[in-house]
Amino acid sequence: MPVSDLISLVLVLRPAEAPGRALPLWWGAAAHALFLSAVRQVNPELASRLHDEQGPRPFTVSNLLGAARELTPSRQVALRFTALQAEVASALLEASSAGGPLAPGARLELDYLPFVVERALLAPAEHPWAGESSYRQLMSARLVQTAPPRRLRLRLASPTGFRSAEKQQPFPLPELVFGSLLERWNSFSPMAFPADVRRFAAECLGVSAFNLRTRSARLKEGGLRIGCVGEVTFTALNYDRYWMSLVHTLAAFAFFSGVGASTPLGFGQASLAPEEQAGSGPGRPAGEGQEQEQE
Amino acid sequence: MPVSDLISLVLVLRPAEAPGRALPLWWGAAAHALFLSAVRQVNPELASRLHDEQGPRPFTVSNLLGAARELTPSRQVALRFTALQAEVASALLEASSAGGPLAPGARLELDYLPFVVERALLAPAEHPWAGESSYRQLMSARLVQTAPPRRLRLRLASPTGFRSAEKQQPFPLPELVFGSLLERWNSFSPMAFPADVRRFAAECLGVSAFNLRTRSARLKEGGLRIGCVGEVTFTALNYDRYWMSLVHTLAAFAFFSGVGASTPLGFGQASLAPEEQAGSGPGRPAGEGQEQEQE
Repeated sequence: MPVSDLISLVLVLRPAEAPGRALPLWWGAAAHALFLSAVRQVNPELASRLHDEQGPRPFTVSNLLGAARELTPSRQVALRFTALQAEVASALLEASSAGGPLAPGARLELDYLPFVVERALLAPAEHPWAGESSYRQLMSARLVQTAPPRRLRLRLASPTGFRSAEKQQPFPLPELVFGSLLERWNSFSPMAFPADVRRFAAECLGVSAFNLRTRSARLKEGGLRIGCVGEVTFTALNYDRYWMSLVHTLAAFAFFSGVGASTPLGFGQASLAPEEQAGSGPGRPAGEGQEQEQE
Repeated sequence: MPVSDLISLVLVLRPAEAPGRALPLWWGAAAHALFLSAVRQVNPELASRLHDEQGPRPFTVSNLLGAARELTPSRQVALRFTALQAEVASALLEASSAGGPLAPGARLELDYLPFVVERALLAPAEHPWAGESSYRQLMSARLVQTAPPRRLRLRLASPTGFRSAEKQQPFPLPELVFGSLLERWNSFSPMAFPADVRRFAAECLGVSAFNLRTRSARLKEGGLRIGCVGEVTFTALNYDRYWMSLVHTLAAFAFFSGVGASTPLGFGQASLAPEEQAGSGPGRPAGEGQEQEQE
């Protein structure tokens, strides 16, 4: 069986009790702490490295999904952890297996509130944010395509932003999106992509449609980070089969790696939209929208 | 009385008959043709120059406002022309005065469809897109402020886009927005602003919030142009009173000049949001939006 070095584990959780206090608006830091604590229980040495390492981290966490403004034991919520390296993937799988800290039946804490794990899902059929793959599988699926599509659409599900020349940059410019994916791919994949992917994105990918709005959320240290959520479509202005196959591979990788800054804290959760949808024209015609806006 | 070198004339129109055919989705090219035809009737030499000139044009037109999908004589629509130079402003005022081609009672054609002018408005109290000012007035209003706000919000009412390094760029990056305004200001204002406004925008203005989506529309030549509509908030990362007063002046100027590419064809219609609203925080908190997106 091939090693999964890319996994996306969705934990279906039930609050153990109704919380008697205000809830955080953003659970990213709490999810990060839970992730490290679970890894520590199955592989303490790995947990220390993940905690201390600089640079891109081989995991991401999500915000608490489905939590709205209140938590009650009658309503399930979900949390998602992804791993970008075989060692981290193994630790997550072990942690969610019988007897592990994330296994069904286990009790855990998020922001000091108790939850019970109801299910731990890896199959996309069970949850749209669950999945399992490998770098080789992502690559080979795209590199054998006779002609990868000109166009692809990314869904940015949690606030996605970038640091660029010392500024927070909340617009998903092609070179920032694919530069960020490339950096992570090359940090953790057994086969590196050429650095010129970023230049191809800058020079040959255009933004042909988007529907995006900013959201802000607090980082661990209390700083406010801006990002955008919504959808953005990239189109090849100068089509090249080789470069586009790398771009599509990175876009598929985004499901596991996230995009942009602070992905280990819940930011930048992303997924590639199905191809048939991405192919439909560039935005709505202007006629209708404009008068409503301008009047 | 000071000369108005900046005017925004709103024509309230009524269709003279129900059109027996499909309507254009985008009226920018038709509005452009009407504008030049009206100027030709009062100042043929100016109309020739406006037609032949390269570079920034001293006028803008809007799409047909309020037209929805159908036109009927029972429903008013509106069209907006702006002038960025005294000579063009005078021509517009003359054309909309008694006996002129844009005066109340006049018949005119848009895309070969007949309309009757019901009112020609210049006062903001009569229509939110009407107005009259001058370069000196815009400048003096801002330069005497003790401290211009850190933050300003632009509403992009019709598709707004940019050309940047041979690509269509639909994200309103600070340097593109204020670079475009600066270029127009310096082309037509009696007092030029320093070229470093663009550098200040690039280095010291951040995008702190936005809610934007793309719209496409056809240019005269049939090409499809992408732009975005919605709102974007810029915030000074390094506050400087002098540069911020220039930035605010340009943002107010955007009401007349529009922003970005193809403003003489209805693109880039913009207005500055009132200050008290622009001051409210950077986007909505992430908690609520994210789970809805991601689930």
